[in-house]
Amino acid sequence: MFEISYGDGLGIFDSYKMHLVGRKLQQYRVILGSASPRRKELLAGLDIPFDVIVKNATETIDQSLSLEYIPEHIAEQKFTAFLSDLQEKDFLITSDTLVFCEDKALGKPKSAEEAKQMVQFLSGKTHSVVTGVCIGTKRKHLLFHDIAKVTFAQIAESDIDYYIEKYKPFDKAGSYGVQEWIGYMGIEKLEGSFYTVMGLPVQMLYNKILEYEE
Amino acid sequence: MFEISYGDGLGIFDSYKMHLVGRKLQQYRVILGSASPRRKELLAGLDIPFDVIVKNATETIDQSLSLEYIPEHIAEQKFTAFLSDLQEKDFLITSDTLVFCEDKALGKPKSAEEAKQMVQFLSGKTHSVVTGVCIGTKRKHLLFHDIAKVTFAQIAESDIDYYIEKYKPFDKAGSYGVQEWIGYMGIEKLEGSFYTVMGLPVQMLYNKILEYEE
Repeated sequence: MFEISYGDGLGIFDSYKMHLVGRKLQQYRVILGSASPRRKELLAGLDIPFDVIVKNATETIDQSLSLEYIPEHIAEQKFTAFLSDLQEKDFLITSDTLVFCEDKALGKPKSAEEAKQMVQFLSGKTHSVVTGVCIGTKRKHLLFHDIAKVTFAQIAESDIDYYIEKYKPFDKAGSYGVQEWIGYMGIEKLEGSFYTVMGLPVQMLYNKILEYEE
Repeated sequence: MFEISYGDGLGIFDSYKMHLVGRKLQQYRVILGSASPRRKELLAGLDIPFDVIVKNATETIDQSLSLEYIPEHIAEQKFTAFLSDLQEKDFLITSDTLVFCEDKALGKPKSAEEAKQMVQFLSGKTHSVVTGVCIGTKRKHLLFHDIAKVTFAQIAESDIDYYIEKYKPFDKAGSYGVQEWIGYMGIEKLEGSFYTVMGLPVQMLYNKILEYEE
């Protein structure tokens, strides 16, 4: 059993047992291969120490794949871009997120106008967010993905303008951040993992790392 | 139409149109009647300026109420505690959150042992989180609530110990924070609003404020 010393506040952090994934990853240097500040925040929230390294990967879409497998296919391409540089004890995590609505795939918008069109398109509808992940070492990697459904309320045009002008969601698939103002005032319902919508399925990731065997 | 000046970065924030609720609340001084840092963060995320004022209310539970109405009943008691002090143009928001699992209502734990028991009880099960809200002026207030379902994975006992020792969730109904480590590694699925689980149904709140008429 653990002990908690109330009213102390200092020193009690020293005695933590590490969580299961932390213990498993102690032998590795964990690398997050993503420029996304949300993914960095999410991985940090799993209480795992890691480095961020960004590489540009050539992303091609295999047209024969069914839609929900596209993000993990792109995540694997991001992973492969690191392969020749990975050291013996490196454990790499790459990821990709896409928004699907009425058979349209929405990535990042190219302009404020396109961002506005995307949010107007999503307004009043339910869409799917798919995040694919690739994890592993230079010797073995594995792929998985998670799907969440998001239902937007009808959002007034002036509120869409407010959001895009203030938050400039140009680095986000589907032109919105679930953790931003529009996610607060506009999302009626979510079904699945909130963090998958944010960009990294951390609950699934935690378990996939636990299961991972080289 | 609005304009976005790319690559500028300064100055463009001046030209915001305000969002709909911001315009509606301009005539009021908004007060959040809650000591919860999460509620403060959530209301701030709606881009509404407000003051925080904390008052102690006597909370009694009306046994004749069905479970999902208890939080809004407590929110109304918190509201009523402010009534004699409210000014003409004050607009008050109070709220209460409870966790229900297998007909047990879970509030805040009284000790580390009770916190551990609560999380062990929730582990591997689906529970409901109900947040009730009371909003309005000294002349008229209204009540509403939102329900979300949360499914926890089976969590190892050593991971529950890690969570409670490090995060000390003693101010949280059900002894967990959806936005903390255990919400990252342990929540398989959410159905409803993430923010209702965090403590304030901000999407519903946005619309209730829009609809509010004195």
